[in-house]
Amino acid sequence: MIKTYYDAEVSYLKENFAYVLVIGTTDVSLIPGITIAGATPELTHFTPAADAEYVILGKCKSINTIPVSPNGIPTPALLTRASLSFINPLKLVVNAGSRIIPKIPFIDLHGEPGKDIRRQALTIQKTNEILENGIRLGEELSNNFKLIVIGESIPAGTTTAMATLLALGYDAMGKVSSASPENPKELKRKVVEEALRNLPPDLIGKIAKVSDPVLLGVAGISLGFKGKILLAGGTQMIAASAIIKEFDKNKLQDITIGTTKWVVEDRSADMLGLSRQVNVKVLASMIDLTISAFDGIRAYEKGYVKEGVGAGGASIMAFMRGITNDMLVKRIDEYYSHLVSNLKGSNIS
Amino acid sequence: MIKTYYDAEVSYLKENFAYVLVIGTTDVSLIPGITIAGATPELTHFTPAADAEYVILGKCKSINTIPVSPNGIPTPALLTRASLSFINPLKLVVNAGSRIIPKIPFIDLHGEPGKDIRRQALTIQKTNEILENGIRLGEELSNNFKLIVIGESIPAGTTTAMATLLALGYDAMGKVSSASPENPKELKRKVVEEALRNLPPDLIGKIAKVSDPVLLGVAGISLGFKGKILLAGGTQMIAASAIIKEFDKNKLQDITIGTTKWVVEDRSADMLGLSRQVNVKVLASMIDLTISAFDGIRAYEKGYVKEGVGAGGASIMAFMRGITNDMLVKRIDEYYSHLVSNLKGSNIS
Repeated sequence: MIKTYYDAEVSYLKENFAYVLVIGTTDVSLIPGITIAGATPELTHFTPAADAEYVILGKCKSINTIPVSPNGIPTPALLTRASLSFINPLKLVVNAGSRIIPKIPFIDLHGEPGKDIRRQALTIQKTNEILENGIRLGEELSNNFKLIVIGESIPAGTTTAMATLLALGYDAMGKVSSASPENPKELKRKVVEEALRNLPPDLIGKIAKVSDPVLLGVAGISLGFKGKILLAGGTQMIAASAIIKEFDKNKLQDITIGTTKWVVEDRSADMLGLSRQVNVKVLASMIDLTISAFDGIRAYEKGYVKEGVGAGGASIMAFMRGITNDMLVKRIDEYYSHLVSNLKGSNIS
Repeated sequence: MIKTYYDAEVSYLKENFAYVLVIGTTDVSLIPGITIAGATPELTHFTPAADAEYVILGKCKSINTIPVSPNGIPTPALLTRASLSFINPLKLVVNAGSRIIPKIPFIDLHGEPGKDIRRQALTIQKTNEILENGIRLGEELSNNFKLIVIGESIPAGTTTAMATLLALGYDAMGKVSSASPENPKELKRKVVEEALRNLPPDLIGKIAKVSDPVLLGVAGISLGFKGKILLAGGTQMIAASAIIKEFDKNKLQDITIGTTKWVVEDRSADMLGLSRQVNVKVLASMIDLTISAFDGIRAYEKGYVKEGVGAGGASIMAFMRGITNDMLVKRIDEYYSHLVSNLKGSNIS
């Protein structure tokens, strides 16, 4: 149930690991039509906190139910929680800069929410602080772990990823994925083109202008960590890898991206082409949700959502430990039906 | 180099562990003369953040040098960092409610700084939040660890500890230790007596009135954790144990206090009598600093500082791994001389 690209290895994935979820927001998600990671543009700012709460608690506190798309497709945090339930690793939520703070214990990187990249995403000072505190956290985690899995939650993160890849010189226009089956490529292109005007010449200036706090948090933790890293995410993790490469070329030897087949097979994007450009290895979870009992879950097979909250990487870790697709989908369905029945209950009462 | 009391065992201390430092402040430390954990009453609010920075980074960012007493005796964070340097465990800084936020990655329990216990230390809501988030963090740490060591940094914490023990019905007046060789017992008694007036009848009401965020954070994490716990601290950890006992009587079976000989031998206090009242086991580090090359370090043998930042527990963990007193004091002296020479350097430049 795992497909490998570019000589990616899998044996070390059996090591004991910590699952690190980096959350943040970017005001790019407020642009109508750019993301479906929330029922409305305003609600996208609640999605990362609610995702983190769901992964840790099995319920959300910042919103009434789990994050859904405008047409009700549930957050990939559901897939992540189901996958990790078979493993029970240490889970750490890291706030790199989220407008809404999760109502659970979380690690603070002293970041700030990302602003609109058409103006200025982050201050230079906060860019440096997120990177430095991420490095420090990664170093500290090295004292106990030889492997970490890093997931992300940031609506509109593929748009900031595309801007970041282009700012760093990669051929990325129109090549990032989307949580929607109808990738809003024209809108993303317009936003990114405007963001890339008057780009500063220096590296920190560039990423402060067009990236987001999650990309910096993921890059910082990876730069500081001294073992193997599975970056659990889609085209956003290629942008994180590109930032990592700017600071430490050799680091990519220890890094593999773990994502879903839906991202790799997304014909509106070019996951494999982009990862080849940056030279980062890729694994894809071949999770099959066609056997789910629920429309909302089977919708993933039609290109909805695709990835997020480390869903691809978490399912890869479950598969590596002998969990079958049947077992995993059964658990996803159990969790989903529990959420749906709770929702009905709260409507009645 | 370890003395055991009340059938305390030590074999499990060889397990892999995480070192958790819970920090916070109480406005009780602003009362002149009540604590020497800072060069001035106002600076005591910087001590927990600076202690955390020193343990993680080996230098402080919130103040220019490490915390010192009014007469220049250095923080026990120095002993902690030296002890842990032989072991290199995962170190997690937990902010339960500190006026000054440490400039490093830290875990946020959504607490608040403790106010003066003569009025009201904490709101009921924040008391519950710190406990609940502590429990959640303890549960999460259980996924990867069978043993945790919890240290604390909160100036004037022995006064809030005494108030908490008395509020919970223990015979504690005048029995808590002090960072000063001249325990300001009369001042502490007056503050605590005033704090205990009009005490609410319920448990949460009592601890919200007279405790502090660190006691609640330590208690919460301990209540949630499913393995063995070394509470690294002095008489404050007896108050934390008393809170734990109110919520879960059986929990104390898994808990041992690890402190220093200076606290156990403090004739102005009654560490062993208090721990017998609460029924919690005690270990004492028999660390001997008379062989140090520095006056500031040898001052510990004259009753200065005595404990804090988990110094006693951290040195116990080092001794359990074959580190000798000579090795440990040599490392402490190295770190101290490094700090002193840096200080001289910054004066010249």
